[in-house]
Amino acid sequence: MSGLDLSAMLDEHGRRWRDRPAVLEMESGRRFDYAAFAGRVRRLAGWMESVGLKQGDRVVWLGQNAPCVLELLVAAGRLGAVLAILNWRQSEDELRFVLHDLDPQIIVWQPDSLPDSLRAEWKDRSCVWLCQDSLDSTCDYESAIAGAPEAAAVAMPSDAAQLLLYTAAFSGRPAAAILTRQALVLQAIQYAALRGWNNRTTYLSATPLFHVATLLDCLATFVVGGHNLFVRHADPAAMCAIIAAEKVSDTFILPPTMEKILELDASARNGLGSLRSMPYKPEWNALVTIDDSLWGKRPYGYGQTETMGYATFSALGDPGKGGMGRPSPLVRMAILDEEGGELPDGEVGEIGMKGWTVSPGYWRRPEINVQRYTADGWRRTNDLGRRESDGTLSFIGPKGRLIKSAAENIYPAEVERCIAQIDGVAEVAVIGTPDPVWMQSVRAIVVPKPGATIDEAAVIDHCRKAIASYKKPRSVVFADTLPRTGAAIDYAALDRLYEGGGYPAG
Amino acid sequence: MSGLDLSAMLDEHGRRWRDRPAVLEMESGRRFDYAAFAGRVRRLAGWMESVGLKQGDRVVWLGQNAPCVLELLVAAGRLGAVLAILNWRQSEDELRFVLHDLDPQIIVWQPDSLPDSLRAEWKDRSCVWLCQDSLDSTCDYESAIAGAPEAAAVAMPSDAAQLLLYTAAFSGRPAAAILTRQALVLQAIQYAALRGWNNRTTYLSATPLFHVATLLDCLATFVVGGHNLFVRHADPAAMCAIIAAEKVSDTFILPPTMEKILELDASARNGLGSLRSMPYKPEWNALVTIDDSLWGKRPYGYGQTETMGYATFSALGDPGKGGMGRPSPLVRMAILDEEGGELPDGEVGEIGMKGWTVSPGYWRRPEINVQRYTADGWRRTNDLGRRESDGTLSFIGPKGRLIKSAAENIYPAEVERCIAQIDGVAEVAVIGTPDPVWMQSVRAIVVPKPGATIDEAAVIDHCRKAIASYKKPRSVVFADTLPRTGAAIDYAALDRLYEGGGYPAG
Repeated sequence: MSGLDLSAMLDEHGRRWRDRPAVLEMESGRRFDYAAFAGRVRRLAGWMESVGLKQGDRVVWLGQNAPCVLELLVAAGRLGAVLAILNWRQSEDELRFVLHDLDPQIIVWQPDSLPDSLRAEWKDRSCVWLCQDSLDSTCDYESAIAGAPEAAAVAMPSDAAQLLLYTAAFSGRPAAAILTRQALVLQAIQYAALRGWNNRTTYLSATPLFHVATLLDCLATFVVGGHNLFVRHADPAAMCAIIAAEKVSDTFILPPTMEKILELDASARNGLGSLRSMPYKPEWNALVTIDDSLWGKRPYGYGQTETMGYATFSALGDPGKGGMGRPSPLVRMAILDEEGGELPDGEVGEIGMKGWTVSPGYWRRPEINVQRYTADGWRRTNDLGRRESDGTLSFIGPKGRLIKSAAENIYPAEVERCIAQIDGVAEVAVIGTPDPVWMQSVRAIVVPKPGATIDEAAVIDHCRKAIASYKKPRSVVFADTLPRTGAAIDYAALDRLYEGGGYPAG
Repeated sequence: MSGLDLSAMLDEHGRRWRDRPAVLEMESGRRFDYAAFAGRVRRLAGWMESVGLKQGDRVVWLGQNAPCVLELLVAAGRLGAVLAILNWRQSEDELRFVLHDLDPQIIVWQPDSLPDSLRAEWKDRSCVWLCQDSLDSTCDYESAIAGAPEAAAVAMPSDAAQLLLYTAAFSGRPAAAILTRQALVLQAIQYAALRGWNNRTTYLSATPLFHVATLLDCLATFVVGGHNLFVRHADPAAMCAIIAAEKVSDTFILPPTMEKILELDASARNGLGSLRSMPYKPEWNALVTIDDSLWGKRPYGYGQTETMGYATFSALGDPGKGGMGRPSPLVRMAILDEEGGELPDGEVGEIGMKGWTVSPGYWRRPEINVQRYTADGWRRTNDLGRRESDGTLSFIGPKGRLIKSAAENIYPAEVERCIAQIDGVAEVAVIGTPDPVWMQSVRAIVVPKPGATIDEAAVIDHCRKAIASYKKPRSVVFADTLPRTGAAIDYAALDRLYEGGGYPAG
């Protein structure tokens, strides 16, 4: 009687779209149409059931882009279980923390994505490991699918969890946003409509699927019966070759990559005509098809992992005063004061969200959930905004400090926590400095303990090993003291002293 | 934590769309923008609460098109109550049956839509009556809204009932399909997307809102923040005037009305350029804007009241072999055998539906619900279809006999039941005969009791008073006997003997 989840949808796709192409793995060249894909997922769920996976259990994916990310998400959901898509760029220490946090029943991994030492350490726990190797069609994963019976779908409420994505490092440790069965399906339907996607859409996932932006693109392609292509990594020339060969219609691409493509030989850029793109430079626009969908005309909005991506769309209605557009039909928005009350239009406060697509909370973080949700059920996004008199949203900036390196969010608290573990560090503060290509770079200001000697390379090296490499400082400055206002570190003063700036929309 | 309903959406619309026009009542010329409309609905809900309306209670609307239909639907939902939109074309006897069936707490009515005798008969029951009169801004309805406080929204599950629409006359009596909170919102979002509707859409409801087709158009306009116009009745010249004056972009219009518009003076047809229409004759196409949305190119599908309108869309993907397209992303479809098992592709069986938009059953009809739902939860649509090998649906025809007069479904059992009540009627059977304008006309074959004399006019007159006028026979044939196969009336033989035919897609 209740709604459909991704698994019921795929069953129907297996008949509705039948011999339309569903997925293609670029490394292996393996392709499946929707009928075959639906059968694979039912058997994958059958294998999961056979090793004891139950409703509410966790499955972990640890690897780069592959069709199996989508297969695992749908199959886990078929049994009422939850998939966590881990960030393979994390350090061993971070992975260890996350695995303990999840306490998974099944871990599906690619050979390169897991340190041997962590694997060894984990092997005595009651957890099933399954290796996925794109280039080896006899790998564990393919064998598991081949040998399993098809599982029946478990009936679940639409607001049950289906996906965990790790996000903001509150108090220095990441937490997993819970995303519900209805959030995945409905956001994808709504977003595909704004983009004008349909069963003729061919989407290339070349950016990581542990990011909600790429994952949403992939799911939106899925719900309309489009063709999903997956590649682990593609340099600009390889991307061009894939786009030309498979007539890719959409992909997630930012100006730095566009620039690299423009630097290639003309022959390498020949077959990009199928790609729909927002307008950029004239020489780029001549290569591609300009996207004339609502989204293509104004591809902006406000969102976060916890709202399954975009919660507002500038494509909804006329542009208005705020740059971020209006809330999607699937959510309500409020600008909140410190007590969780609603502020009037024109005042700056914390952006609050409620609705079909909004996360009900963080996995096993009751202490954070109390802070992040008001008594009325508004999610506190940790971002500041203002509702303009025309109903549109202006984004003011993160409520807490956030450093942005390309698409990656870096939380100073997390990097500070890491550096504070180094012997000889008395105090540390982390800021962002403007970067012409990547928006910002991480800079650490370190106060050594009396008599201690620490050098920049050692700090950077320590971080490279302990946390994801992109979070490490590019530069370290040593100081005798940190500026404070009362007990709190004065970050504004640090920015002035050490050339900080370029914070996202700050 | 769960999803949004129409009321939460309207609260947000009151800010997201704010001073955009929400509704316009043509008779009175009263207009409200979204902020004002949202306030009216919160006060209407406040009035409902003040007279004791509670979760699960029923509100009845009995009248022709007006913005208050939308106001009542959203306000009732705000309190977790249910709106029944009644067919004002029903006879007094039908209305009496329906009112008893609903046992409503509130009845909102227009002066012309209710026989005085029924009103008088009902007045001692514990039920609140509220008169809505488009032309009298001091009427009960407007006073109730003006004087009430705003009501808070009651939290409800997304699959709770919000709307009752009377439909198929099983066993000779209509039953109300229960439509859920999620069905209304999600179907409207999905359908608006296929039609390419957005906040610049201006929709004119000129056909009755007790039909799911017009109601869905109205709701789809609402969810995207468009402008809803309501008129009780408009002849072709009046429609043209409204379209021109308000720059109407969409309305529900069929070829007979197009023809009448083409017969008007050229000056009357001058301002139709804003109207998007599917292509018709060249002279029509020259007057309007041809709808180039996905829907405009292939405006067909299979649906019924119980699936909140369209459940399949020919606009989804290439046309395919079946004429009805593919199931919407919000539903699953199965072709069922008599036992409720699924039939393979290519075989004809009963169309089964499941999903977000599918009714969970009929109001207070456990005996029908047992028949109409399989143990697996498939709704049996009572229509026959075939899934083609390309995933599309071919519609074969109603499983039971159905006569179609323009957009109206007429169930022979209901008309037969009515005629059988006439003194002197021994037996009766009702068939449809082809009609060049309205698809079919009703013909009754009556066997009088021995010695009884009945004339055609008396039969027609009896039906005109007892059931909705459009269900009455256009012609009555008297016979000595009815052809039978065993105990059952042989309708195929009746069609041959009495010129029956033209059944929908039969």
